[in-house]
Amino acid sequence: MQAAAIWLTGIPASGKTTISILLRDYLQKKNMPVIILDGDEIRKTVSKDLGFSPQDRKEHNRRVIEIAKLLVKNNFTVIIPLISPYKETRDLARKELPNFIEVYVKASLDTCIKRDPKGLYQKAKNGEIQNLTGLQAPYEEPINPEIIVDTEKNSPEQCLGMITLKLQHLGYLK
Amino acid sequence: MQAAAIWLTGIPASGKTTISILLRDYLQKKNMPVIILDGDEIRKTVSKDLGFSPQDRKEHNRRVIEIAKLLVKNNFTVIIPLISPYKETRDLARKELPNFIEVYVKASLDTCIKRDPKGLYQKAKNGEIQNLTGLQAPYEEPINPEIIVDTEKNSPEQCLGMITLKLQHLGYLK
Repeated sequence: MQAAAIWLTGIPASGKTTISILLRDYLQKKNMPVIILDGDEIRKTVSKDLGFSPQDRKEHNRRVIEIAKLLVKNNFTVIIPLISPYKETRDLARKELPNFIEVYVKASLDTCIKRDPKGLYQKAKNGEIQNLTGLQAPYEEPINPEIIVDTEKNSPEQCLGMITLKLQHLGYLK
Repeated sequence: MQAAAIWLTGIPASGKTTISILLRDYLQKKNMPVIILDGDEIRKTVSKDLGFSPQDRKEHNRRVIEIAKLLVKNNFTVIIPLISPYKETRDLARKELPNFIEVYVKASLDTCIKRDPKGLYQKAKNGEIQNLTGLQAPYEEPINPEIIVDTEKNSPEQCLGMITLKLQHLGYLK
């Protein structure tokens, strides 16, 4: 079995984290070395020196990609839940990461605003957050992702099923 | 089995990389998820934006420690070969990293100059490199490392034996 870089992109509250955890647990049960590289967590640690300017966001994404690359090269499957609103970032990830799989985690803005588990949309409406992707800042929809999962129409478990079937089909899972 | 952060410190050519590779291969055979976090490699990737000023060196070490921390927390054993000449850096690593094991890879400067597999000492003598640890910049010897391996007196395989015995003794290996 080959390691893969599984990149989950989507607006806040689309379901990236939920699916990432399910997928990690599934692959762990198959005895695959797997890790979630959470963009938010890396922001608070490795990228603690960076802010939110376009340049800093770009540098942050570059570092996430470099860490993921190091891990995949060492045969760890890496799951990367990252809003990654810009095609440019995802294209860079595709170019740099071996065995790259782009998963578009899709849900309408209305649904995400209703879910809002972290209260981000509410904070944005209150003016506490600016540039929230989906609401105030653009999200460029993936054009040719390997997988699209629609978390409005399908349960997290169904989305997991679709992703693991695709991984199997691509030869990353037995 | 618990994951550990195994930190190998020592002057250039002391044998850190050789021992790291042997140790990784040994732990892999025991089916432990293990990875080498090579300081030089991370310099060229994640820390590509940094130079060699004291501040930049410190920031680089901070990032290596953060990446190692993320991995150990996810139950990966991490082997970190890093000259890390300053006690301050190693103390920070000890404070931040769960299950921290400091291995002092020891060899005399004369021996390391004779070995010089990367030609670093020669380059320093030619004036091509400045501030080479051991020769031109200080190396603060570890005071209370968990393990000292003397690569002048012992073969790499013997050093590996000593380290794995210690890991067993500390409960990180069955």
